[in-house]
Amino acid sequence: MTTLETMPMRQRMEALVHGVQDTICQAIEALDGQSFREDCWQRPGGGGGRSRVLQDGNVFEKAGVGVSVVMGELSAEAAAQMGGGREVGDLSFYATGISLVFHPHNPMAPTVHANYRYFERGDGSQPGSWWFGGGCDLTPSYLFEDDARHFHQSYRTVCDRHDPSYYARFKAQCDDYFYIPHRKESRGLGGIFFDNQHGEDPDALFDFVSDCAQAFLPSYMPIVEQRHGLPFNPTHKEWQQLRRGRYVEFNLVYDRGTKFGLRTDGRIESILMSLPLTARWEYDHSPAPESEEARLLDVLRTPRSWA
Amino acid sequence: MTTLETMPMRQRMEALVHGVQDTICQAIEALDGQSFREDCWQRPGGGGGRSRVLQDGNVFEKAGVGVSVVMGELSAEAAAQMGGGREVGDLSFYATGISLVFHPHNPMAPTVHANYRYFERGDGSQPGSWWFGGGCDLTPSYLFEDDARHFHQSYRTVCDRHDPSYYARFKAQCDDYFYIPHRKESRGLGGIFFDNQHGEDPDALFDFVSDCAQAFLPSYMPIVEQRHGLPFNPTHKEWQQLRRGRYVEFNLVYDRGTKFGLRTDGRIESILMSLPLTARWEYDHSPAPESEEARLLDVLRTPRSWA
Repeated sequence: MTTLETMPMRQRMEALVHGVQDTICQAIEALDGQSFREDCWQRPGGGGGRSRVLQDGNVFEKAGVGVSVVMGELSAEAAAQMGGGREVGDLSFYATGISLVFHPHNPMAPTVHANYRYFERGDGSQPGSWWFGGGCDLTPSYLFEDDARHFHQSYRTVCDRHDPSYYARFKAQCDDYFYIPHRKESRGLGGIFFDNQHGEDPDALFDFVSDCAQAFLPSYMPIVEQRHGLPFNPTHKEWQQLRRGRYVEFNLVYDRGTKFGLRTDGRIESILMSLPLTARWEYDHSPAPESEEARLLDVLRTPRSWA
Repeated sequence: MTTLETMPMRQRMEALVHGVQDTICQAIEALDGQSFREDCWQRPGGGGGRSRVLQDGNVFEKAGVGVSVVMGELSAEAAAQMGGGREVGDLSFYATGISLVFHPHNPMAPTVHANYRYFERGDGSQPGSWWFGGGCDLTPSYLFEDDARHFHQSYRTVCDRHDPSYYARFKAQCDDYFYIPHRKESRGLGGIFFDNQHGEDPDALFDFVSDCAQAFLPSYMPIVEQRHGLPFNPTHKEWQQLRRGRYVEFNLVYDRGTKFGLRTDGRIESILMSLPLTARWEYDHSPAPESEEARLLDVLRTPRSWA
């Protein structure tokens, strides 16, 4: 009999990401009232994916959830960037993952991003030739400290269940990863971020990734449910649009997934579905001192402890 | 007596870019009815600049014209990217230039970009250690063939006055430079683009660059004057916003000047003042067959000869 534990990791992770995509999309559709459009696509070099986008909905300006299962041969350049192959000696790879970004209309409701992924170089049988990565982070335009605490506490609870060192490490890695050097500020309030997770116990790592992915809805839905109907004015909306501009800057200039996708000639609409529907760049904008907008910037410039 | 011909090239180029900035800003203000804001800034490593921005004007959504005169020591990485130093053996550099981008409100009026620059490595006295670069290119949301012909003919006339091979070479280099690989289309209709121009006769090159810079107003003003008052509807505006998104993608992912500025910790507001005030990303948008929008895409996918 094949039990979950005896299935190859590729299949277990594929089942996880497809299941999580379904669960999350159902919950988002129930809140928004509109449906996701689905596109299944194939990658010329091997594999493919299932992209779902809900655009200009009732609650969400743009919500995208993509899963992919891709394999093939890496270019030498992509292999060097990807790591994990020094022990393997061939350029074949396998990768599966889920990636999502939700941008609500209401400036009081935060954008959220999550990504969980599993890689193998070669057949993944050698030490160091397979690894997990992932994380989830929150990007508000206006700071509600309760939201930040709820979000971070959700992931602290998951982390602590698996390893007491995880939350502190992965929270710090998240703050590092989403820092925008040319703006000297973070993209958002962080969360957790991890990469290159491998070791003696793949089952334990899979369980951790699985728990993180399943924590997504309870970490985010209570926040967006509470904020998406709050009143706002055109000034709030304009500030949100400026923050969306920063989101675009991070994704196009620094995000590893986006850069990897552009370099490896991935399906462009799936790579860039993380971009907001609308964004704005004003010359030399800075918020009034003591304003709510300035209060957010303070936190983006000096990340805080939330859990 | 010091005549123009005996002045050092640094001073001649500085006088040119400042003079051209003044002339162009006066003409744009006369058309728009609003004034540029001016910011003079200093670069911690040496030198500085004068940025002028007109935002949310009557004709222009955003118009930025910057000049800079910067010098100092390059990092080894920046020096390798910059070139021109193999013969010099030190990391000191000098650069001056003018850069402008104008985004009109009206979707029928094209965006335009121009940039003229002069570099030296060391004291610029050795062969290959100084060079000129520059160009000017047009990015419409809707194709008016008369505009494309007028714009290209303007630069063909300037080029032909200096060297019969210039226009064909620099037109082709422009099409290459502004190609967006991940979209498989050009940013716009091109124009001319040149870099690393050096040789036996610096005076002749300076004259060429000076003529190009002075051709800017007659190449662009008749176009924007004719188009900025044309009627348009929300569909036209939305298409313009999607094209603005492509402009952002090119500038953040590929533009050498932007990447150089981000890497060398330049003044961020001056580097990014080329970005439009607003932009839009729709998932998997494609225009209706035979539409005006599709007609533009055809030209962006297969650059044409215009002069």
